[in-house]
Amino acid sequence: MRYYPEKVEKLIEKLIKFPGVGPRSAERIAQYILEEDDCVVLALAENLISIKKDICLCKKCFNLSEGEICDICKDESREKVLCVIEEVKDLVFIEKTGFKGVYHVLGGNISPLEKISPDKLTIPQMTERLRKEPVEEVIIATNPTPEGENTALLISEILKKMGIKHSRIAYGLPVGAEIEYVGTQTLKKALEDRKLL
Amino acid sequence: MRYYPEKVEKLIEKLIKFPGVGPRSAERIAQYILEEDDCVVLALAENLISIKKDICLCKKCFNLSEGEICDICKDESREKVLCVIEEVKDLVFIEKTGFKGVYHVLGGNISPLEKISPDKLTIPQMTERLRKEPVEEVIIATNPTPEGENTALLISEILKKMGIKHSRIAYGLPVGAEIEYVGTQTLKKALEDRKLL
Repeated sequence: MRYYPEKVEKLIEKLIKFPGVGPRSAERIAQYILEEDDCVVLALAENLISIKKDICLCKKCFNLSEGEICDICKDESREKVLCVIEEVKDLVFIEKTGFKGVYHVLGGNISPLEKISPDKLTIPQMTERLRKEPVEEVIIATNPTPEGENTALLISEILKKMGIKHSRIAYGLPVGAEIEYVGTQTLKKALEDRKLL
Repeated sequence: MRYYPEKVEKLIEKLIKFPGVGPRSAERIAQYILEEDDCVVLALAENLISIKKDICLCKKCFNLSEGEICDICKDESREKVLCVIEEVKDLVFIEKTGFKGVYHVLGGNISPLEKISPDKLTIPQMTERLRKEPVEEVIIATNPTPEGENTALLISEILKKMGIKHSRIAYGLPVGAEIEYVGTQTLKKALEDRKLL
């Protein structure tokens, strides 16, 4: 049953796929788009196109970037502490705590079940990078989930062999939760309370 | 403080303006867009552009339409009952009840304070339309708010002069509500408008 013109129905179908947007919110967003000035909606459309065209991953840390190297890697005032994380979204949450080091985005976790071996992640690039630019410390900030723990363990073994000082983000986080959903203060505490391995 | 590349920050700013989308949801939607296939996002951008280009208001009833006349006005099997509503979104809700008549979208309510006189709405077009195509009944379905009531009253006076049978959508208890939690005015109306069984 169609209640809107076909193009509007199609837009609603697309909006429903947004995280946290249900059928009713999708309808309300579509109505907002219909009522909004042409130029605002065109700017949104252009923004979407340019994001897919211009945003890539930083060649050094695999953060989102508009150029080959991201703003964080370019920033020479950053401390020589490397925070290893699973996903780009974790970077944003850690940045919000005021962390002043640099990052390395793994792109996920190792998972023998899903056949994700260390070389499917950016672990080889991380070791390569650590050989070229030594850091004072590596903080392993994968999620406190079984998969994140496994990945942390593997990275810890690699770093031990390389003789690099490294730590695991502290268990101030509720076990089984994900970094994305933990408050900034908890996350900050967890960074401060990291334990040398 | 910027945590994302500039284009992503700009997208988040735009997404926050969507109804029901807060800063956190906007970030999550932006992340969804970054991770989603290029073709899906491009289709969304094209959809937005084409909606602003091709969707206009039906010349007859002021519903959303892809052509001059909307699908509902074109449908000759529709009953000759005209439902007068404030906004297009009300049309969708009434359609979902299975209503089989036609509509007239006012585009708002009269409001002396905001200087919205009847001719700022589509009331002149409504009377013109009723002169050309007589209907069996006009149902006035503006909202049960003071503004909606005022508008309903004015339309009722116009229709009385034109000698057109018309009705006001019923007041009463919402289905599934409890008397305990319904306002006094609603309850009073529900008692006054009781139906003999």
